[in-house]
Amino acid sequence: MKASQYREKFNMGVAACVPRAPGAGEVQLAVSHCGLCGTDLHVFQGHMDHRVKTPAVLGHEMSGVIAAAGPGVDGWAAGDRVSVMPLDPCSSYLAREGAGGEPCPACRAGHSHICQRLRFIGIDVPGALQGLWTVPAHTLHRLPDNLSLEHAALVEPIAVACHDVRLGEVKPGDYAVVIGAGPIGTLVALVAQHAGARVLVTEVNPFRIQLARDLGLNVVDAREVDVPALVAEETGTAGADVVFEVSGSAAGAELMTKLPRTRGRVVIVAIFAQPPPVNLFQFFWRELKLCGARVYEHQDFDEAIDLAASGVIPIPRLISGVYGLDGVQQALEQMLKGGAVMKILIDCKS
Amino acid sequence: MKASQYREKFNMGVAACVPRAPGAGEVQLAVSHCGLCGTDLHVFQGHMDHRVKTPAVLGHEMSGVIAAAGPGVDGWAAGDRVSVMPLDPCSSYLAREGAGGEPCPACRAGHSHICQRLRFIGIDVPGALQGLWTVPAHTLHRLPDNLSLEHAALVEPIAVACHDVRLGEVKPGDYAVVIGAGPIGTLVALVAQHAGARVLVTEVNPFRIQLARDLGLNVVDAREVDVPALVAEETGTAGADVVFEVSGSAAGAELMTKLPRTRGRVVIVAIFAQPPPVNLFQFFWRELKLCGARVYEHQDFDEAIDLAASGVIPIPRLISGVYGLDGVQQALEQMLKGGAVMKILIDCKS
Repeated sequence: MKASQYREKFNMGVAACVPRAPGAGEVQLAVSHCGLCGTDLHVFQGHMDHRVKTPAVLGHEMSGVIAAAGPGVDGWAAGDRVSVMPLDPCSSYLAREGAGGEPCPACRAGHSHICQRLRFIGIDVPGALQGLWTVPAHTLHRLPDNLSLEHAALVEPIAVACHDVRLGEVKPGDYAVVIGAGPIGTLVALVAQHAGARVLVTEVNPFRIQLARDLGLNVVDAREVDVPALVAEETGTAGADVVFEVSGSAAGAELMTKLPRTRGRVVIVAIFAQPPPVNLFQFFWRELKLCGARVYEHQDFDEAIDLAASGVIPIPRLISGVYGLDGVQQALEQMLKGGAVMKILIDCKS
Repeated sequence: MKASQYREKFNMGVAACVPRAPGAGEVQLAVSHCGLCGTDLHVFQGHMDHRVKTPAVLGHEMSGVIAAAGPGVDGWAAGDRVSVMPLDPCSSYLAREGAGGEPCPACRAGHSHICQRLRFIGIDVPGALQGLWTVPAHTLHRLPDNLSLEHAALVEPIAVACHDVRLGEVKPGDYAVVIGAGPIGTLVALVAQHAGARVLVTEVNPFRIQLARDLGLNVVDAREVDVPALVAEETGTAGADVVFEVSGSAAGAELMTKLPRTRGRVVIVAIFAQPPPVNLFQFFWRELKLCGARVYEHQDFDEAIDLAASGVIPIPRLISGVYGLDGVQQALEQMLKGGAVMKILIDCKS
């Protein structure tokens, strides 16, 4: 079996690996496809060397087929087509590993997706960029027959968007602004639109602007348009009901407080490497609300599978290329350059 | 009749004035007491000269007795003891003045306390630092007999605290942190404690630390104590349920994101003159929530009157001095120096 490995900064290789047999509560999957995302790109650039133990197998946006089920796994059998929600909270692994001890306060409060000792599968433990992959059975989500395994590799990022839109409390008729039209921003815009919102997208990358327009989204170039004036005009001076900050830029953090209506909502989706200046006066003045949204919960994965299978998300338009396991280095370099790239998939069967 | 007037930066004077007779929907009040607050101090320093038309009569934390009621005022009569919620939203003044036109989107959405064309009484139109004062009847709140007029001058800042605690969704058993123990921070701590929260207050001014301790609050000096470690220890590593930022300082904006539990809440009470750096990554990572809280709504005024009259708020301990109308300059200078001063009242009958 082959696996893609992160070895050091800017260095991905392919190595032969011995598959790990599934233990109690685990399944072994034959991985079909795996998408690459911004987090993988952070690892590739060495930004997460403090957290990642090399050589590391990355990958957490995947589809596959169960190859074998370990002891004590009920409801799953070899041949089942699945995607994996790549979160292993302490409330799960402490019990599974018989380690004892009490789960963390976040798990006890029902926020196990943001467990204080979370193992993110594909970063903290080996990921899906390999032929055979062993994961806890609690991560599995069944795929419907009408969703191809290639397309199902996008279930994970769609689930991120479903989580963001759910935490943003988007309702039919809402006016929503999405700042940043990378893969996640574009998916947030599509999911918010499906939830009944009027959606405005702002972006600065010409390729992404054009792609989002081709998908039928209402997109403006934030460098050319006075976005606050546009939103005021389109909402009769009220402002937006909800704003999604998906750019991670200081410009985005500045724009996000200029758009919401009184008591409007801002959802922080992006990962900000540095604390940007934030206009807290505007939060006070208009009683704005802000919330962070991280990964997903199981209900978001269920919704994402429905949206992917029903064709609501135009998945083929979002896939920029499909490479083999030996193409991971090239794919990450292409993503790093930016420009004309959206989602790249790795065919892990190759 | 005498009035205190803001004439220019650092210059308050007293002048003889002709009282304005109440028009339709208005009442004329004999003002008893009026507190001075941080906003008055901003005006005194010239920070709001763009907004304030001189000579300006300030004052919006008041108590008084109705002297006369204008036409069309129902339910109020001369002799009634009242406090004023000093907000005149466009949904009220457009109708009262027969000006026509549609109320703003904020008023139409039920957020008239943060009306997009709000007239704040005491800043945008004349305030209470005068013997006789004419205001719209919709601003009135009746005072119970067991609440003295001197003490009732604190109803307005208590209402701010009630609004903050309500928007912070404080529940019995919550762990709350209040950053900054000026008059509003101290009141927020007292109201949150009354709502059933365990409250930790952080402050740096020794006088305020001692006063808050004398009131029975749990206070630490933020320069001497590792507050995040203390909160983690006191909550079993979970973090605080709610954090009130009442300092308006960059240090406060930095501290506020280090304290909440997963999905915990931050309430922005302070007025930030400049956008400080804010750790948006922490909002993402722990799915924190933030909301701004500005002034109050009528229900907060009702609650504040109950808390003041029932003795829950130890009002005498919060009053640093009572001066006459000709003492406003001295009072504001004392507040500006800081140190050993909490709430100063002006006796407007003098």
